[in-house]
Amino acid sequence: MFPTTIREVAKRANVSEATVSRVINKKGYVGKETLKKVEAAIAELNYTPNEVARMLFKKKSNTIGLLIPDITNPFFPELAKAVEAVAQRLGYLLILCNTESNPETEKKYVRELTHKYVDGLIIMNQNNEDITYDELPFPTLFLDRVHDKRVLSVSSQNKEGGRIATEYLLQTGSKRILHIRGPHNVTTATERAEGYQEVMKKNNLAAHVMDCDYATEAAYQLGKSLFKKAVEYDAIFAGNDLIAAGVLMAAKEYQISVPDELQIIGYDGIDLCKHTSPQLTTIQQPIYKMGEQAAILLIAQIENQLQEKESSSHSFPVELIQRGTTKPLR
Amino acid sequence: MFPTTIREVAKRANVSEATVSRVINKKGYVGKETLKKVEAAIAELNYTPNEVARMLFKKKSNTIGLLIPDITNPFFPELAKAVEAVAQRLGYLLILCNTESNPETEKKYVRELTHKYVDGLIIMNQNNEDITYDELPFPTLFLDRVHDKRVLSVSSQNKEGGRIATEYLLQTGSKRILHIRGPHNVTTATERAEGYQEVMKKNNLAAHVMDCDYATEAAYQLGKSLFKKAVEYDAIFAGNDLIAAGVLMAAKEYQISVPDELQIIGYDGIDLCKHTSPQLTTIQQPIYKMGEQAAILLIAQIENQLQEKESSSHSFPVELIQRGTTKPLR
Repeated sequence: MFPTTIREVAKRANVSEATVSRVINKKGYVGKETLKKVEAAIAELNYTPNEVARMLFKKKSNTIGLLIPDITNPFFPELAKAVEAVAQRLGYLLILCNTESNPETEKKYVRELTHKYVDGLIIMNQNNEDITYDELPFPTLFLDRVHDKRVLSVSSQNKEGGRIATEYLLQTGSKRILHIRGPHNVTTATERAEGYQEVMKKNNLAAHVMDCDYATEAAYQLGKSLFKKAVEYDAIFAGNDLIAAGVLMAAKEYQISVPDELQIIGYDGIDLCKHTSPQLTTIQQPIYKMGEQAAILLIAQIENQLQEKESSSHSFPVELIQRGTTKPLR
Repeated sequence: MFPTTIREVAKRANVSEATVSRVINKKGYVGKETLKKVEAAIAELNYTPNEVARMLFKKKSNTIGLLIPDITNPFFPELAKAVEAVAQRLGYLLILCNTESNPETEKKYVRELTHKYVDGLIIMNQNNEDITYDELPFPTLFLDRVHDKRVLSVSSQNKEGGRIATEYLLQTGSKRILHIRGPHNVTTATERAEGYQEVMKKNNLAAHVMDCDYATEAAYQLGKSLFKKAVEYDAIFAGNDLIAAGVLMAAKEYQISVPDELQIIGYDGIDLCKHTSPQLTTIQQPIYKMGEQAAILLIAQIENQLQEKESSSHSFPVELIQRGTTKPLR
């Protein structure tokens, strides 16, 4: 059941494997008679070019690597789905590399992908100073992360998102606004925090920032430690929806009325927002579009069809989706 | 920046590429002197065996395919994460194939994976009569799906899960129990329905079964169509957690009190259950363990280390997790 090999074709046509290879890849000189013999053998044996042999010849594998910090954070499967749909349409397979944000795992993956002639790599992981992605022997693209200007990147307007969230909370009457930000090596988390800080400063209000992992359990614990004392804040802008959901769980446990006593805004716009009670207000990123755009740009670069570096970083607008954890605008 | 090739090593050692290949792969005869020369060239050039060349030689790529119906259904990323963790530890890369349950996409993927010498395939997709998986030129394993006995499978005790859920609903006082089952080509959905029907029959109660896709939106619509009339049922056993979450959303919209007027049990035990309000009672599958076991068994088969077919199908126990959408047992 293994597909016919180049060796069998060569034997049948009574030529060398190198000759068959030249015919298949339409490279180098092949005499007319020889060409006929090889083509006849290919037809008789119902040969389809062996992808692996082609790969060796062309140093091209038609695969793309996808480095993901955590596939169980619902934000990433949605991105991965879009990348995969485009890749598949354009003839590329996707190698899933889930790193659990472990720098050693990331390094190991990058090494393996290099040896396998992967054609390109989409990186959703965060800063790892040990890896200089712009020196890899294949094109790379950063997704949901802003990086060195020489490398392609697709993200959304995170600083603007931080501004929009904070301004909304002010407009609906909150003043003591806490921002629970994501990890410090995550560039987008820092941008969101900057947007928050800018708006607080402009309004002469004190900024309060706490750190949290992008995980509901961690946020739930942080929320409980906040709420067991008298609640100091009347609003929380959470670094992502998982943090918002965790904080909301804790608030309910301490019978804090949301949004009356405490407003909460999340970030990303994952499906989970619709299932919490009340439903989560969030800053919606165009997740699927970002994934599509990333795959299109990377493959264009792989196939040398990228237009003259008009711009290497692509940033999508975001919007606030008003749901149950914030008060409506008057 | 491309790694050193076998060709460069051959040139440096002044031998043929075939000879270098024999040295690298420790196959076939190589003279002592030649061996020394080749090893010296390898050391000087800091050569690491080219994975692609090895792949061609051994017809082995150290990659595993993973066919998934929908990566954005939270059940699958959790499974995929476990498969990936084991694969990585044992030296295999994972090719993510998201089929959107489209049989044509599935066929296309299987064809591509065959041409790329993938070493094995884990199938989470459902019945596709066009593909005879046991005739593929590499080992296959069905995950969360029971299949032909000749093929390896890892799943959980779905019929038992259906029984447990239904019995619990009876024990907590419900009698008019509706089962909203998953798609008919999904073997595990059918098993869960069988468990439900068996228990209803044993108790001389009428079974009511409706069909739904494994998606919250579809279940929400179905729920609304049920609840806008007088509610006939006092409990719903949902085919998975997404269906349960959708039905719960609809019940809240129609101000049906859960669990007092209507009990709901989901299936799978995904993270979402903890974020709904009330939190979802569910039949918990050991998702991560199932994924690990699948990867271990498939790789054992690939490496011919599978113990004499003691059993080809592995089935994990499940348990009911009592939360807020059902009444506690008295």
